[in-house]
Amino acid sequence: MEQHRRDPVVVVGGGFGGLAAARALQGTLRDVVLIDRVNHHLFQPLLYQVATAALSPGDIAWPLRTLFRSQRNVRILLNEVMAIHRAARRIDLRDGDPISYSALILAPGACHSYFGHAAWEADAPGLKTLPDALEIRERMLMAFEKAERVKGTPDALDELTFVIVGGGPTGVELAGALAEIGRKAMTPDFPVLRETTCRILLIEGGPRILEAFPLALSRRAQASLERLGVTVLLNRRVQDVNSKGVLAGEEFIRSAHVIWAAGNVASPILSSLGVPLDSSGRVMVEPDLSLRGDPWLFVIGDAAHCPSAEGKPLPGLAAVAMQEGRYVAGMISRGVPPERRAPFVYRDRGILATIGRAKAVAQFGPLSLSGIVAWLAWCFVHIFFLIGFRNRVRVMFEWIWYYLTFKPGARLIYWKERIKRT
Amino acid sequence: MEQHRRDPVVVVGGGFGGLAAARALQGTLRDVVLIDRVNHHLFQPLLYQVATAALSPGDIAWPLRTLFRSQRNVRILLNEVMAIHRAARRIDLRDGDPISYSALILAPGACHSYFGHAAWEADAPGLKTLPDALEIRERMLMAFEKAERVKGTPDALDELTFVIVGGGPTGVELAGALAEIGRKAMTPDFPVLRETTCRILLIEGGPRILEAFPLALSRRAQASLERLGVTVLLNRRVQDVNSKGVLAGEEFIRSAHVIWAAGNVASPILSSLGVPLDSSGRVMVEPDLSLRGDPWLFVIGDAAHCPSAEGKPLPGLAAVAMQEGRYVAGMISRGVPPERRAPFVYRDRGILATIGRAKAVAQFGPLSLSGIVAWLAWCFVHIFFLIGFRNRVRVMFEWIWYYLTFKPGARLIYWKERIKRT
Repeated sequence: MEQHRRDPVVVVGGGFGGLAAARALQGTLRDVVLIDRVNHHLFQPLLYQVATAALSPGDIAWPLRTLFRSQRNVRILLNEVMAIHRAARRIDLRDGDPISYSALILAPGACHSYFGHAAWEADAPGLKTLPDALEIRERMLMAFEKAERVKGTPDALDELTFVIVGGGPTGVELAGALAEIGRKAMTPDFPVLRETTCRILLIEGGPRILEAFPLALSRRAQASLERLGVTVLLNRRVQDVNSKGVLAGEEFIRSAHVIWAAGNVASPILSSLGVPLDSSGRVMVEPDLSLRGDPWLFVIGDAAHCPSAEGKPLPGLAAVAMQEGRYVAGMISRGVPPERRAPFVYRDRGILATIGRAKAVAQFGPLSLSGIVAWLAWCFVHIFFLIGFRNRVRVMFEWIWYYLTFKPGARLIYWKERIKRT
Repeated sequence: MEQHRRDPVVVVGGGFGGLAAARALQGTLRDVVLIDRVNHHLFQPLLYQVATAALSPGDIAWPLRTLFRSQRNVRILLNEVMAIHRAARRIDLRDGDPISYSALILAPGACHSYFGHAAWEADAPGLKTLPDALEIRERMLMAFEKAERVKGTPDALDELTFVIVGGGPTGVELAGALAEIGRKAMTPDFPVLRETTCRILLIEGGPRILEAFPLALSRRAQASLERLGVTVLLNRRVQDVNSKGVLAGEEFIRSAHVIWAAGNVASPILSSLGVPLDSSGRVMVEPDLSLRGDPWLFVIGDAAHCPSAEGKPLPGLAAVAMQEGRYVAGMISRGVPPERRAPFVYRDRGILATIGRAKAVAQFGPLSLSGIVAWLAWCFVHIFFLIGFRNRVRVMFEWIWYYLTFKPGARLIYWKERIKRT
């Protein structure tokens, strides 16, 4: 590494992993360049609340430049990585000159996987970015407006049938939030709607939802969803998606709104590395998260396949990405040669998923929680991990407001308007 | 009106005028239908703060359905008026069946006027809707990102030159806010920028800015803008706008960002009424705001040309629209025949414009205010007129936050991303 020491450490991606890595390099003598395609860090665990009109985009996103305002050794580039030249230690960018690096941390994240059916995306959008969330929010709000206009027809029923594909945390949280807004919060505003007119279905390919949780919590989560009016369909593989609905197992479910929360595939930029990828497109990394034979190129977060103690890959969680980011930043700042690196070990602090108002499940080591206790833990953890005082206050205020009034704060349609005009 | 009494009162437009009219019909026996093309009421006086990243869309907009949740006699239609058939007392909508009315209140507002040069709009967007504001916000934020990349070139200078056309309140408030964010709030985040690199020009065709205010206040506002670093050009008529800049008088000013705040023209739907319009497309109304010979069709707000005591038309202010809305609602609910109506009289409660942090001008009757006193009055009035506790808290919090930290809260780019994807 010596001859390259003057080149910066380049971090690709301003998600949880990239952010943690860049922050952990604070106070070191290394220059850092952080590259992202968007100008903000997004708190993805709350993105479903933007999609369901409970929060605004500005509540869960922070400009990267503001986050690093006082960290002098970090430079931000709003740009896109087009190619990585490992031998030359150089990356090509969409705009402007290539950039050389002394060490590279790849944290590009994941995008939706439609299991080879890319055409499904048009009829079943996923939820990864702010535009995704605003698209879903707008479709949902327009559905109620349209249902009011075409009331009583079969179209009206389709308009108010929401199908969520995938029973992981994102799917469960979306289903719960949609049930609350669709079956409770919206009904006072739409004379034609009753609590039962809005149908929400959650389709899971496996035998239970929230498979990362213990079986008892999966069951409790499913029961909570069902009490909210969500129909949970298990062991149903999606065979087809089109504009009329979704073929789940043998049954075709008519719906104007299918949302995809089923699969992830790591960023396509990784294929340019010329190294083995797993079936989800993730890089098979060494125990120190570097590439074999390339000790100063690290891959972290949703883009990395890092085996856990049990042999399974580590899950795509913010906590994993953050710990990985801090670990690789430590290796780089201390210049630890590959043969002297202790392998990365993930310290599992627990997992949480919320289902609705005062309903959640949580697993902290041997401790299983559900109901209002888990929900309070969920609220606390999410507020705590939000970055900055401003966003903590805003999100807390919105939650208390929504809890008390059942009036979601961000029920605005302005997205489609824009589409019409361009 | 008797034979039509069972038909609803139809209100077109959910702006200040339409909202005030529909609210004033609360508790009467008349059914009300409120039609708008968007699902929200927008607090337009603060729209420039969304355009300059200080506030989020959700802070200054409210779903119309939530606003009227408890007013049982109001029905909301998210729809667009395509034609008005006065003789049949019927209006055609974009979606669904025509609707008959017993009385009609037209409050469709105004859009930008480019004085016959519609092609200028592409290079000089205006500021009327949330999409407009997000478009300007994104252009501004991208300008700083791009300037950082192309620093030192003539392109960089153009990227950081903002020209605002029109020295009315919107233009003045935009210029002041842009100067604050561009010359103060952004500089710590962009290593290449200095306070002086960002140029803001305000172009006014007449001899002074804020012509609705007394001369002394116009002068003081101009001096405040200049202290913030805004160049104010008076007596300059815009001759041309293109992608390179704007021809103002004899001088061509290179700029990648021209914003239009110069002229309004009333909604095009008014031309289908077949009645005389003024040069701004406004309907020449009777002293009771109705049409001659059509006593139950009223036009209010920016769409109406209603002469003031001095003979000039009343200005396009929220206060005018709201008083007009309440006046016509009173005529309708009390069924006052045209010959017994007292003419509408606008009670002028004062005008305000803000220039920047702790800088504003205000005129209340004979009382002229400027500086921090006017600014506090401005803050108080705007918080007071915001609808609902939630928005008051959010906006107040954002203002205090920005005042203390100079970190604008809504510096997000996600709009262009969307354009790319569609």
